[in-house]
Amino acid sequence: MQSGISIKKSSVTFDQFSIEELAKKYSTPLFVFSEQRLIDNYKTFERSFKQNYKNIDIHYSIKTNYELDILKKLKSLGSKGEAASALEVIFAQKAKFSPSDIILDGPAWTDEDITYCIKKGIQTLNVDSIDELERVNKIAKRLKKKVKVSFRIFPEIKISVLKSFIEGYIAKFGIPLSQAISAYKTAQKMSHVIPVSISTHIGSMITDPGFYEQAISRLIELAANLKSELKIDIEEINLGGGFGIQSLNYYSLQNAILEKAGISKYSKAASIEEFGKRITETFKKKLAQHKLPGLKLILEPGRFLVSDSGILITKVVAVKDKWIFIDGGINLIPESIFFIRRGFIVANKCKLPVTHKYNIAGPTLNTADVLAVDQKMPKMEVGDIVVVLDAGAYSLSRSNQFTILRPDVLLINDKQKIKFLRRKEKPEEILNKLL
Amino acid sequence: MQSGISIKKSSVTFDQFSIEELAKKYSTPLFVFSEQRLIDNYKTFERSFKQNYKNIDIHYSIKTNYELDILKKLKSLGSKGEAASALEVIFAQKAKFSPSDIILDGPAWTDEDITYCIKKGIQTLNVDSIDELERVNKIAKRLKKKVKVSFRIFPEIKISVLKSFIEGYIAKFGIPLSQAISAYKTAQKMSHVIPVSISTHIGSMITDPGFYEQAISRLIELAANLKSELKIDIEEINLGGGFGIQSLNYYSLQNAILEKAGISKYSKAASIEEFGKRITETFKKKLAQHKLPGLKLILEPGRFLVSDSGILITKVVAVKDKWIFIDGGINLIPESIFFIRRGFIVANKCKLPVTHKYNIAGPTLNTADVLAVDQKMPKMEVGDIVVVLDAGAYSLSRSNQFTILRPDVLLINDKQKIKFLRRKEKPEEILNKLL
Repeated sequence: MQSGISIKKSSVTFDQFSIEELAKKYSTPLFVFSEQRLIDNYKTFERSFKQNYKNIDIHYSIKTNYELDILKKLKSLGSKGEAASALEVIFAQKAKFSPSDIILDGPAWTDEDITYCIKKGIQTLNVDSIDELERVNKIAKRLKKKVKVSFRIFPEIKISVLKSFIEGYIAKFGIPLSQAISAYKTAQKMSHVIPVSISTHIGSMITDPGFYEQAISRLIELAANLKSELKIDIEEINLGGGFGIQSLNYYSLQNAILEKAGISKYSKAASIEEFGKRITETFKKKLAQHKLPGLKLILEPGRFLVSDSGILITKVVAVKDKWIFIDGGINLIPESIFFIRRGFIVANKCKLPVTHKYNIAGPTLNTADVLAVDQKMPKMEVGDIVVVLDAGAYSLSRSNQFTILRPDVLLINDKQKIKFLRRKEKPEEILNKLL
Repeated sequence: MQSGISIKKSSVTFDQFSIEELAKKYSTPLFVFSEQRLIDNYKTFERSFKQNYKNIDIHYSIKTNYELDILKKLKSLGSKGEAASALEVIFAQKAKFSPSDIILDGPAWTDEDITYCIKKGIQTLNVDSIDELERVNKIAKRLKKKVKVSFRIFPEIKISVLKSFIEGYIAKFGIPLSQAISAYKTAQKMSHVIPVSISTHIGSMITDPGFYEQAISRLIELAANLKSELKIDIEEINLGGGFGIQSLNYYSLQNAILEKAGISKYSKAASIEEFGKRITETFKKKLAQHKLPGLKLILEPGRFLVSDSGILITKVVAVKDKWIFIDGGINLIPESIFFIRRGFIVANKCKLPVTHKYNIAGPTLNTADVLAVDQKMPKMEVGDIVVVLDAGAYSLSRSNQFTILRPDVLLINDKQKIKFLRRKEKPEEILNKLL
């Protein structure tokens, strides 16, 4: 069986289920996740990296999608976790992850986050600044525990032509490479932190493996310098996540401007096999070059594992000139089309020619609630079933309750049985907080 | 007493409370709302419009901030309501609003929304498309009720120099002026809808009253044409909301590009008094010109009433070169700085000179979690108390639970007593939905 979405002769299916039948049986909007697709994605990811280098740990980025059944399945497949807050560590433990398999990331933990994670015996704290390091050391001292730390290093790679806004923002995370030695020296002098690792996260939705190769070169060179200058033995390099997915269109402000000027400039991601091969080969080559032992390579995939494991089934509620309105939008999938563009399938018209162009809007009274511009589709009518593809990542975990409650969420498990992950919210669930 | 935020000799206060003391007594981040400020804003707004024209109804836009105490106070001041979904009508009823005082807006109601609102006897449904009108008529027929409707008309005004993206999006709402007569003719032929009103909403954060004047001209001319061509007696003109606020900086993608090119182009909103005076004078003049009787003017303010009635008190958790990280960000105030920029006060350093420039980031592991760029501030340290101003609109109502739970929310009531509106969320409240 082909897991996930598939266009058959007579219908569109998600795993073994017809979309039209799901839309009839349940109410829309409806999130549906495929456990089998999640398994397939995990195995593809693991194989792509591990076939070439064994000493690799995969730490799933919990914030991408923290539904407990998703977490449980990933845990059973061998995944470890990456959390951005104590809250996610709590979620992960409910899914049977051990805190000792979880890495904590983030630029602004509260003292409560740090205390909770150290008490629970978290694996490593990926520290973002010297201020954060000082707070970690202070709390660890109070708790009489020594904790492993890593610095998130900003390797100062020019990620894309999009220099103006976004790159400046990415630079808010981590410590610039030029200040790295000094940061590790500070950590080395502290009583309750042990610097054992170097981390980075070069960005989201990276399409070109070359950027990771550049980062690896710089981080392994840093590991060699830490050894020679400070006698620090780095045990692992954490390359973070951000691996691009081929089923998504990557779009950016700059591309939008280029497109307006008549120069469209979409880019397509490399395959995960290519990411795996080039990253591990560069990793081995650079280790050999710097005469370093077989360090562990840590990867933190999120979107790659869950993106096409989830769809949002919606219905068209209005058609107006070139605009169609569907019943799920930016409230459920809060990513701007200025950065990423998804695919769409009209489940009940998948055999019709795509003769029209529509802008697709969500249901909220929000100008920015637009999911697609100039999408080629068949002629659309009220009641048509529109599947929003790649709805598994940064959707539910970032959803809000702006004028509309969150909908039913289904899981098709790996035995092709349907299970509710969430029931549609009730007004009382919000009102209780207001009373 | 000066309601809301105020910089005193020795400290910064919100109503009668010192920010430093609030930050000491409660945990941060902390939302605080001022009932007195809300009252003052409502009265200022009402006076600005009604002193010149009596036949005015104010319908508060519930989605802007739907905390029950806020709704209750506005109701007691005489405000009616504007809802975008049945959910908001439910909230409003909890605050003692009558459905017959609520207008329903929105491009993509569900059948359940329409059914609920008609059953409850909603005042008017502001219809966005012919498809929506047909669904309303069908449901009204089934319920054996005749319902008042209005069309949201897109008056095709050029709002700003920002033509490229945003204006195309605003055009998704409503029916173009050129198709208005035909839309009312369609409604006239239907059995269970009564077209009595013309609505519009020309955009958000409009700084120049001139755009409203243009809209009024076109809508009153339309009312005259509906009378002469279709014998439809329009009873009211609903001008929507979007009145700009002087305490905010209006920023846009286009302005950002201009700024990058060295041509900064912030614009400042007119005072609400000027909005009120120019809008009502134009309204009266155009009514006289078209020999129409004293139509009702409906206004739907949201942000103007609640924006500076709310603040978010945060603490600095890390300082890194020119970046400071505070403990509340885009998770709680999800508006992009590409569109709007707030003010900030460092409560414990309000007397120090602003000698430095910082970018202010929120706590989430999200590249876009940036609240300010090049903000002039005193030299900043961990623990400093940063007040995010104008945090009352589109904050809690659009907040999410991305890696961090929602915080405590306080109200200072009009007797200067503190009351909890919400307690900090617990992990169980999310986990229950996942289990």
